[in-house]
Amino acid sequence: MTEYSPGLEGVVAAQTAISEVDGANGRLIYRGGYLIEDIAPTISFEETSYLLWNGELPNRSQLDALRQEMAAARKLKDSTRSVITSLDYDTDPMDVLRTAISAQGAAKTLQKPTVSEAIALTAVIPTIVAAAHRRRHKRDLVEYLVLLADHGLNASTFTARVVASTGSDLTSCVVGAIAALKGPAHGGATYSARTMLDSIGSIENVEKWLADAHAKHARFPGFGHRVYRTYDPRAKILREMAKTADPKLHQLAAHTEEVALKILHEAHPERPNATNVDFWASVVLTGAGIPKELFTCMFATSRVAGWTAHVLESLADLRIIRPASQWMGPEPGKKPVPLDQR
Amino acid sequence: MTEYSPGLEGVVAAQTAISEVDGANGRLIYRGGYLIEDIAPTISFEETSYLLWNGELPNRSQLDALRQEMAAARKLKDSTRSVITSLDYDTDPMDVLRTAISAQGAAKTLQKPTVSEAIALTAVIPTIVAAAHRRRHKRDLVEYLVLLADHGLNASTFTARVVASTGSDLTSCVVGAIAALKGPAHGGATYSARTMLDSIGSIENVEKWLADAHAKHARFPGFGHRVYRTYDPRAKILREMAKTADPKLHQLAAHTEEVALKILHEAHPERPNATNVDFWASVVLTGAGIPKELFTCMFATSRVAGWTAHVLESLADLRIIRPASQWMGPEPGKKPVPLDQR
Repeated sequence: MTEYSPGLEGVVAAQTAISEVDGANGRLIYRGGYLIEDIAPTISFEETSYLLWNGELPNRSQLDALRQEMAAARKLKDSTRSVITSLDYDTDPMDVLRTAISAQGAAKTLQKPTVSEAIALTAVIPTIVAAAHRRRHKRDLVEYLVLLADHGLNASTFTARVVASTGSDLTSCVVGAIAALKGPAHGGATYSARTMLDSIGSIENVEKWLADAHAKHARFPGFGHRVYRTYDPRAKILREMAKTADPKLHQLAAHTEEVALKILHEAHPERPNATNVDFWASVVLTGAGIPKELFTCMFATSRVAGWTAHVLESLADLRIIRPASQWMGPEPGKKPVPLDQR
Repeated sequence: MTEYSPGLEGVVAAQTAISEVDGANGRLIYRGGYLIEDIAPTISFEETSYLLWNGELPNRSQLDALRQEMAAARKLKDSTRSVITSLDYDTDPMDVLRTAISAQGAAKTLQKPTVSEAIALTAVIPTIVAAAHRRRHKRDLVEYLVLLADHGLNASTFTARVVASTGSDLTSCVVGAIAALKGPAHGGATYSARTMLDSIGSIENVEKWLADAHAKHARFPGFGHRVYRTYDPRAKILREMAKTADPKLHQLAAHTEEVALKILHEAHPERPNATNVDFWASVVLTGAGIPKELFTCMFATSRVAGWTAHVLESLADLRIIRPASQWMGPEPGKKPVPLDQR
């Protein structure tokens, strides 16, 4: 029995070749050995998904075949469309996505995860997100989607692998991952970063706003990461993209970043305190015309490629994930007192 | 960084006072220090749920208040009823449950998990299960529900805790747990055990059927457990219940158990090879008139008390569960070849 490590920090929970977060060197490696900064500017999201699922980049005919398969899978089932319209109009889009994916993947009998189903789930998420908000995104977001496609054993991917370890189906794995991504400490952080920038409002407020928040022990969303000890390589790329995506918000964000890092370094010189992906993602998504209520859904639109790749990888040597716990209760043997004597 | 332990076996992933699986001594301890064999014959499922959520058994007025709150929460929202009727009639009941709970808990904004919501989710699951199959269960199943209400860090409870660790809502935690419970290596094992008994058919077939299956390296569902090294204490209680619940099936099951354990002990004398809860649960549920397609749903109906108790416990010291992984891919730095050169 190992000692308890809160949040399983430092505990190896899987062997994987899908992606590697090299925290010490600030590198993110995708399947096959590609660094994220080499992949993001030149490779499409479909190519990235193919790479994560199959272990190599597709050639032209493989990519064409994938695109055809995805196009065919973008259509919602009648039942899914009816499920979406059953929900209240103002439902949280992540709750719509969680429910709609559960419906879209509902089947008569249990199915073993396959690449085809991974393709179908990846293809249908943008349809659901668009249906949920009844409108299309304004701009192409390929690079953002590629950057967020996988990131080692983050909480949602780990959830997908725990669900897969019981022999459950791929939809269940993805629904569980969506449930985990929803949390403000995970996928919801981009929304929180944008809310902070909204609340700061303009450059002259930055110093005072952050100093006040810090005095109240508030966290700055978009800063700090469990694994990266240096600058998050995805944040570096998104920071550049943000310059053209939304120049005005970029200016505000750049100054906010500078001041926030200064405050954090002074308060905790022992910590790395780097900017993470959520901070700059919030600026890029804003520039692309995505309302902030959809930020976490956009994250799911990309990460589904990684979730499904991890599940497929784990099938090779499936063993139920069933960790131990440390009992904090009293010695057993206490007899229940009958109700009328309580 | 720790060494990789497949399935996180022996890795402490939480400190808990909700339940303890004492594998070495074949004991299951519920919150407060009660042994399962003291609780199951005398305490109702509502009392058990109250114990898991609050740390002590309710008195009469507390129990009355809980029953009133649960009665009020058994009603489906209009949207949930519409979601259920949107799904195909022959959808797997676990997929109906996963989708309907996701819809029932869909909200406008993110909610922090509370005991009230735990009560509401626990209360509504039987309604959904009944709606899914459009009929009520024939018999009272209190003892079964009490026995299955919690069981340490099993895969579905662990999923609920991983989802909770991101700050996500209670419905997301329960939906993720349902997704994990669905797997044949977890909640689905009771269904598999019943299928095995169906396939054996009658007592005179037991020896040949099991010997043939063993020769084909098939697993016997309902035997073996990650933690228990002796007889599963829940299986012991269910074995007794099965005698009256379904005397004929009990006879077949008892002989099947005897022969299966003999084969397993001969093949693997080094393993404990004990009968687990799924084997005898399949007989008790059959005796109670539950069709086997609903076995995993019945499991969820009970375990939701434990899932929600674990989530509420974990709120006291929330830290995102983000384990490490071991990279099995090549050294990074491989440059992507442009598409037209592939």
